[in-house]
Amino acid sequence: MEEFFNLRTVKWRSGKVLMIDQTRLPGRLRYVKCRTAREVAQAIRRMVVRGAPAIGVAAAMGLALVAYRSKAETKRQILKEMESASKMLGVTRPTAVNLTWALSAIIETARRSGEDPEAVRKAVIEKAVQMAEDDFQANLKIGEYGASLIADGDTVLTHCNAGALATVGYGTALAPIRTSLKQGKSVKVIATETRPRLQGARLTAFELSRDRIPVKVITDGMVGYVMSRGLVQKVIVGADRIVRDGVFNKIGTYTIAIAARHHRIPFYVAAPTSTFDSFNLSEGVRIEERSPSEVTHISGIRVVPRNVGVLNPSFDFTPINLVDAIVSEKGVLNHPTRESVMQFVQKV
Amino acid sequence: MEEFFNLRTVKWRSGKVLMIDQTRLPGRLRYVKCRTAREVAQAIRRMVVRGAPAIGVAAAMGLALVAYRSKAETKRQILKEMESASKMLGVTRPTAVNLTWALSAIIETARRSGEDPEAVRKAVIEKAVQMAEDDFQANLKIGEYGASLIADGDTVLTHCNAGALATVGYGTALAPIRTSLKQGKSVKVIATETRPRLQGARLTAFELSRDRIPVKVITDGMVGYVMSRGLVQKVIVGADRIVRDGVFNKIGTYTIAIAARHHRIPFYVAAPTSTFDSFNLSEGVRIEERSPSEVTHISGIRVVPRNVGVLNPSFDFTPINLVDAIVSEKGVLNHPTRESVMQFVQKV
Repeated sequence: MEEFFNLRTVKWRSGKVLMIDQTRLPGRLRYVKCRTAREVAQAIRRMVVRGAPAIGVAAAMGLALVAYRSKAETKRQILKEMESASKMLGVTRPTAVNLTWALSAIIETARRSGEDPEAVRKAVIEKAVQMAEDDFQANLKIGEYGASLIADGDTVLTHCNAGALATVGYGTALAPIRTSLKQGKSVKVIATETRPRLQGARLTAFELSRDRIPVKVITDGMVGYVMSRGLVQKVIVGADRIVRDGVFNKIGTYTIAIAARHHRIPFYVAAPTSTFDSFNLSEGVRIEERSPSEVTHISGIRVVPRNVGVLNPSFDFTPINLVDAIVSEKGVLNHPTRESVMQFVQKV
Repeated sequence: MEEFFNLRTVKWRSGKVLMIDQTRLPGRLRYVKCRTAREVAQAIRRMVVRGAPAIGVAAAMGLALVAYRSKAETKRQILKEMESASKMLGVTRPTAVNLTWALSAIIETARRSGEDPEAVRKAVIEKAVQMAEDDFQANLKIGEYGASLIADGDTVLTHCNAGALATVGYGTALAPIRTSLKQGKSVKVIATETRPRLQGARLTAFELSRDRIPVKVITDGMVGYVMSRGLVQKVIVGADRIVRDGVFNKIGTYTIAIAARHHRIPFYVAAPTSTFDSFNLSEGVRIEERSPSEVTHISGIRVVPRNVGVLNPSFDFTPINLVDAIVSEKGVLNHPTRESVMQFVQKV
């Protein structure tokens, strides 16, 4: 089975950033090459690459590209170029916290490295590549810890895509499912299609079926129905930002959390430490509003009459009291509270 | 404003049944003509006409077409033809109860009419036309009673389409909104798009914007979000079958009812008496499973990978305790229970 779980979403290869073009899935599995930070920013905005951890690593590699291509002759100059690129990359998506976390880590690495521009280059590229590897290793850990929450025979409902495609590889919400299967448990998945961008139908269904994991797709409105019929034993979702009082994740997550609580089905969130913004509260976190055309059009065809307005918030907020456990590479936090979320992320 | 609320979904016109082709909306407002019961059955199956009350009237008119075209020379013969057509029409959609109710009413009319085949014909056509008129009048009453539940300034969330297009005209869930506006209240609507068939995006948005009623479309997953943000004051939906212990309605309704209860937002169901199956319980009611292609494809384009299965139940069940009131042409039933639902429909 091991040989299946090998999808890598973002890679550094000889001065280029390679990313799976997720706008083309499930029709086509194709890597695009980014040669500049601007191309990376564009890829993030267009959602060629998406998913909080994958965006973080892509942005880090975007900054590494700046260092790689820089003709600067002083550290000060190369830092200036990187800081300017960091600003551009930082505003591509406002909600996921991994993005700012990753950019800060790279800038910090550059500041701390030797005075020679070549030393900066080397340190920054190494750091970006290391961050990709760290993300993958964190997900393996999330898989191990999270598998303890999954019983043999469970059907797990997941929303959007918090899988290999949302990370460097292996996934966050899907990691415990992969690890459970490796442990010999029988696990099935129900994936919500996740309008407007259909990441569940297009991406989660794609990567699970590629790994021969049983998956069925439902529309977002079917969540209550499948729960009431006993077709779901657990819910696991990813996160774009975990604050002290709850979790920002793909629009639709909150409705699922309410339905899970109503049916007393455990609702779990899986995310690496880089997704935690655990000194802050939800207040003031900006929820990105994306283009109305994502709702008014599907596959380029208009489904909402002209002159009718739509809402298109990309994320929603699930209060911490609806979350039964948070899984990170540091372990499982059961019945999280404002206090324990803050302590959890400080754990070494 | 009156001049706006004039859409008629199903009409009898000189031996033909005219229906708005709802598969073409919002792109095109076009009537199709059915000349035989078979054509009507086909239109119901294809969802050219949909919505429990509209299906009921369409089926009644389908039987009237049989009588209209029959060359039978005895009442027995014409009855036999009608009963055979009734069976065919009765299996087109299994969940909505209005269909069987309407077919029984027409067959009953035929049985009770004079012995002359011409008398049967006349009685049956008159009855079908009367049922269309009754449906429209019932909806005006639902509008009046239901308007008492809506306050000036409310935004009402509705699911799928329980509007003029789901009935002969004026609508069930949308009737209280129309009447509130006539009364001078300011009312806005949030319509869920209602995957898989997008009746909210395509039909509700179409008929409300045609009537200059402010409407915004959201995806089904945004329900919890708009409720948590205080953007919704009431929920009103239609019904396909009301049994003693709850309500069958378009898939997604149940999830909305749970979210409404979680936010203490009133959840109302509006439907004419013909939708009540109030001596029965939910047990044993068949929920129609429609073609997987409604989920795997949107506008003819595949969005779910090949070989990945989907679920596609067309309806779900909302237990009566999640319903804050039922509105019919007979009045408002607050806090319905198994007992009061049964009594309510028996009211003269």
